[in-house]
Amino acid sequence: MNFRSDNEVGAHPAIVEAVGRAFASGSAPSYGADDWTQRVERRLRDLFEKPDLTAFPVATGTAANVLALACCTPAWGAIYCHPQAHINVDEANAPEFFTSGAKLIPIDGPAGKLDPKRLAQVLAEPVYGVVHHPQPAAVSLTQATECGTAYAPEEIAAIATATHRHGLKLHMDGARFANALNFVGCAPAELSWKAGVDVLSLGATKNGAMAAEVVIFFDLELAREFEFRRKRAGHLFSKMRLLSAQLDAYFADGLWLDNARHANAMARLLVAGLTPLQGTQLLYPVDANEVFVVLPAHMHDALQAAGARYHPWPSDRPGERAYRLVTAFDTDPGDVDRFLSVAKSA
Amino acid sequence: MNFRSDNEVGAHPAIVEAVGRAFASGSAPSYGADDWTQRVERRLRDLFEKPDLTAFPVATGTAANVLALACCTPAWGAIYCHPQAHINVDEANAPEFFTSGAKLIPIDGPAGKLDPKRLAQVLAEPVYGVVHHPQPAAVSLTQATECGTAYAPEEIAAIATATHRHGLKLHMDGARFANALNFVGCAPAELSWKAGVDVLSLGATKNGAMAAEVVIFFDLELAREFEFRRKRAGHLFSKMRLLSAQLDAYFADGLWLDNARHANAMARLLVAGLTPLQGTQLLYPVDANEVFVVLPAHMHDALQAAGARYHPWPSDRPGERAYRLVTAFDTDPGDVDRFLSVAKSA
Amino acid sequence: MNFRSDNEVGAHPAIVEAVGRAFASGSAPSYGADDWTQRVERRLRDLFEKPDLTAFPVATGTAANVLALACCTPAWGAIYCHPQAHINVDEANAPEFFTSGAKLIPIDGPAGKLDPKRLAQVLAEPVYGVVHHPQPAAVSLTQATECGTAYAPEEIAAIATATHRHGLKLHMDGARFANALNFVGCAPAELSWKAGVDVLSLGATKNGAMAAEVVIFFDLELAREFEFRRKRAGHLFSKMRLLSAQLDAYFADGLWLDNARHANAMARLLVAGLTPLQGTQLLYPVDANEVFVVLPAHMHDALQAAGARYHPWPSDRPGERAYRLVTAFDTDPGDVDRFLSVAKSA
Amino acid sequence: MNFRSDNEVGAHPAIVEAVGRAFASGSAPSYGADDWTQRVERRLRDLFEKPDLTAFPVATGTAANVLALACCTPAWGAIYCHPQAHINVDEANAPEFFTSGAKLIPIDGPAGKLDPKRLAQVLAEPVYGVVHHPQPAAVSLTQATECGTAYAPEEIAAIATATHRHGLKLHMDGARFANALNFVGCAPAELSWKAGVDVLSLGATKNGAMAAEVVIFFDLELAREFEFRRKRAGHLFSKMRLLSAQLDAYFADGLWLDNARHANAMARLLVAGLTPLQGTQLLYPVDANEVFVVLPAHMHDALQAAGARYHPWPSDRPGERAYRLVTAFDTDPGDVDRFLSVAKSA
Repeated sequence: MNFRSDNEVGAHPAIVEAVGRAFASGSAPSYGADDWTQRVERRLRDLFEKPDLTAFPVATGTAANVLALACCTPAWGAIYCHPQAHINVDEANAPEFFTSGAKLIPIDGPAGKLDPKRLAQVLAEPVYGVVHHPQPAAVSLTQATECGTAYAPEEIAAIATATHRHGLKLHMDGARFANALNFVGCAPAELSWKAGVDVLSLGATKNGAMAAEVVIFFDLELAREFEFRRKRAGHLFSKMRLLSAQLDAYFADGLWLDNARHANAMARLLVAGLTPLQGTQLLYPVDANEVFVVLPAHMHDALQAAGARYHPWPSDRPGERAYRLVTAFDTDPGDVDRFLSVAKSA
Repeated sequence: MNFRSDNEVGAHPAIVEAVGRAFASGSAPSYGADDWTQRVERRLRDLFEKPDLTAFPVATGTAANVLALACCTPAWGAIYCHPQAHINVDEANAPEFFTSGAKLIPIDGPAGKLDPKRLAQVLAEPVYGVVHHPQPAAVSLTQATECGTAYAPEEIAAIATATHRHGLKLHMDGARFANALNFVGCAPAELSWKAGVDVLSLGATKNGAMAAEVVIFFDLELAREFEFRRKRAGHLFSKMRLLSAQLDAYFADGLWLDNARHANAMARLLVAGLTPLQGTQLLYPVDANEVFVVLPAHMHDALQAAGARYHPWPSDRPGERAYRLVTAFDTDPGDVDRFLSVAKSA
Repeated sequence: MNFRSDNEVGAHPAIVEAVGRAFASGSAPSYGADDWTQRVERRLRDLFEKPDLTAFPVATGTAANVLALACCTPAWGAIYCHPQAHINVDEANAPEFFTSGAKLIPIDGPAGKLDPKRLAQVLAEPVYGVVHHPQPAAVSLTQATECGTAYAPEEIAAIATATHRHGLKLHMDGARFANALNFVGCAPAELSWKAGVDVLSLGATKNGAMAAEVVIFFDLELAREFEFRRKRAGHLFSKMRLLSAQLDAYFADGLWLDNARHANAMARLLVAGLTPLQGTQLLYPVDANEVFVVLPAHMHDALQAAGARYHPWPSDRPGERAYRLVTAFDTDPGDVDRFLSVAKSA
Repeated sequence: MNFRSDNEVGAHPAIVEAVGRAFASGSAPSYGADDWTQRVERRLRDLFEKPDLTAFPVATGTAANVLALACCTPAWGAIYCHPQAHINVDEANAPEFFTSGAKLIPIDGPAGKLDPKRLAQVLAEPVYGVVHHPQPAAVSLTQATECGTAYAPEEIAAIATATHRHGLKLHMDGARFANALNFVGCAPAELSWKAGVDVLSLGATKNGAMAAEVVIFFDLELAREFEFRRKRAGHLFSKMRLLSAQLDAYFADGLWLDNARHANAMARLLVAGLTPLQGTQLLYPVDANEVFVVLPAHMHDALQAAGARYHPWPSDRPGERAYRLVTAFDTDPGDVDRFLSVAKSA
């Protein structure tokens, strides 16, 4: 009963096998000139209905986010994001490092979502071209958000409108993009470039891969410097097939969607079982594969005693103890049942 | 007959299988708190006869080099290396990026090796504490060198003496450390910390892994900031087992040494067959798995026609055409035979 | 009637003359080895009652702030400051640049002052040593604040306590330190190191100099890297006497205090004349030389027509139009009278 | 008899007076919107016969050089310069800092001058667009060189041709531009943009100013980011008139040329007196205001005893002791006479 994180689980067998096959096949051109890498880009062009997008595999979510952002801002630029954004609180100043010192400016909003009105207000301030002030350069959304909620296409579009009105670029941290996609139920294009996203960091690691993310540029001009930035950051793999074979399998035959569907379903199962119980309360709507929930002390103690594992989470209300439960592509429904049955008995 | 690079080949089956097993085994603590990562460190402590070394897996050679160097120098520091060093010419200013602007200063020497006398002279210049001048901070050696030669322990020690006399740190880029070790025929400790190396970037990728390197600190004080630097560079893997399982298999049962032994033997086979032939000439002694050789035009043409693949290499003598042949852990002796028989017939 | 900024005014004759004398006196050792620079340090040791402080002249307030901050934080560190702090909104990401990417985290509080309770809460979060999170490294106060208020020694001490409890360093941006000192009426030591300040950027430019600031380290260990940082930022003057002669005159015979006394008195005169008038309202207490005030439209129009010059200022209340009036060491009392008489007639 | 450096001398009275007048004149718009700054730009447009150049005052030569270079290269770029160039050995990695990590690559040549043939060879290497290699971005010349020699227009043009052929930009470090101009005897335009210079760091500090340099862009596209870069580096002066009034006086009535003429003449006087003496030998031709000369031990001892001051200088020939003598705008011909008479008597 491990609900700690979708980065603690293993990898999907189809992905592991694809990597095995790739490395058993002898020599291949290095640094991304191999077949797997080309195939990943072709798959993404199909899946996102955009024949001219460019896509670059990298190994970690932090690398995907910060290499993408570094293409969107000068060193004296400002990047707007939610205060809880992963880039703001969980990446040890990697965005500042890769952008040579750009500033992240928090724009709050409920349930992990950036408030488009507040964003529009801030972007309307007359700082453009004034050398004293950080120059507004990019907005970054997380999809699904750090609160487990998903932006709808029209929510993204509202933010994109404010963003593009002032010439900024829109980045999406899609570490859990597949989970959001499953919830929203639209086409990948509608949840990205058609809604105004210029560059997407699309994650696979949390959804069944071993370590693989892909940076997708819908705005091709932004991609111009990417390959130099990736190389000088030590993120260009000589045996690129390690990343590309994972992504190739991930996007083949709908595996990415299947994995997300399962993870989301397991989260909904938890919600369905927990919310009727006395003393529990959801902190946020559960759109994806993360459940933020207040648990009464005795229930938490019983779950711990039964071997359930999950992280505490800060709650705004004093005295209240909240927790985060994360499901994954391989969450065992039996584990969910056991978890709920312990919770009910408590 | 692909002799282009040891980064174009596949991976050793034992390494691929180890990764497969690691990911089939369900949940594991993230970010390096897993068993594989702990085991790699223990193996290295045994292999290097140093029970207090610390070791950190990363995915690429560039990352290993520049994260290690960044721990050795302030931003206003100078790093001395051979003009042909990988960090100087093949890493797109990654050292400057990760060190926030330290300067690489080339110190020449024959056959890819830094000349210890010239180094000692340069380090004796009275720049210490003078704010105008880059402050000498580190020396970086490549083992085996970019010319395919290997430093003997006493050669390393001579450089280490000059390095430490002035308080600098000694870094070794060991992308092909196993190949050098096989040639020199000593213990790993003698080729590293016992000879004065403070931090070693030890490579596995070119010698049978998919993508895995490990930064080994013999000087523990240097390691203090490593984990923050790795994280903010996006080089901390959540599912670290991907890297550690490779390294675990690499160092188990002498696989790293076996792989290097084979690659070096194949290079010697090439040398033995080529050097008697009219018009060929080695540019450097062949200590490891790289052969730099002048080939007469008709021989080169015949080899190309027969499907042999290898890179041209700059030669100092005008009119001469030199090439680089690289062997690997999986080089087929039959390919070497075929290559030599074409060369002889030409 | 120019109340736009204390950086638009000229310089005090005593300072201009001191510079003239310094440059008429022939050769002098370069880079700060001159008599003026030594004398400035001695004066500061006396004035601040701290015989071991070290002091370094620089030319601009931004340079003073960011060079000081860079000595207080690693690249993966966090610096806490008020959202309106000059370093946060008016220095074009210079802090991020000089710290190689440290993050500024805003801590709000009324009237430009950081709320010590909120600070203590934030600093109590368990992020220390966790590689994912920016590491708390420094707190920066502005004295007088960007709202024209001054911290009392006990207010500084409250912040210093929270700061030092967690091992952070306390920086003070003292661009208007003399104005705050005049208001608080204590000794310089009480408003700085005795209250817990570790490093002070002390300004002269806004208070009668041409361009001169001095970074004063009370915590000597912090100063270790300063001179390298200043040089590599291009902020080390060869003819340092240009800066030091200004500072020498500034701290001689109480000129810095006289200048601030006059500027503050002129601000109080404005307050005394404006606040009785219908429709005016102060945004903040006027402790130093800045008056933030709501003016009714007709009064503003009359003042503009009469040639008064000052900047608009954002007000939180919709519909309200606020302005900033800044006085200086050379503000003509006749100008203040004229301004008030126009305001009264309006 | 101080011949240590042109940065130890005072300032020309006309420059000191101009600053005094500027600061006695009351309020002026800040940050460069003042009359002096505008006037400097107009003067430079006239002097350089280029009505569309843009010019930005800064306070130090390091700032001028590195802000200019940062406009010419991406972080993954390479800047080619002479191994002895000030930017390479005397600026504490400031170029690397301001360019976010670009690499300086030394191109040797006799007497401080970059060898255009060697440069052309290096620039012809096929590294363009290859992500592994630093991307050639700029060439930087020093005029007059660190060896006291001056490039003729056709020498600059030869370098500019190689530079521009590959799309690189040509920067000139003109810390002693006026001295070179006096020697070459051509128009400023012929020694800069007409010969192919894209951006010039033009110094005044060493030639009679207190602290003032100006970055002149002949290639306007390069200037696009300059003002943001200057601000975030803390090099934008609020009371800009301090710099601009110096430059205004410097370029008025030929003062810059008069000062350089005098300094050069004093250097020629030294040469004329020293070279006939037994045991002396010039290291380089004396084109500007620096004399690099071998002095016999007894002569050096006599000069020291008589109070002459100058720096030792490294000589290539073992056993030989060389020295640098620097003259300035205010060098007293009587001092030169005394110096020579001591040398002769020795």
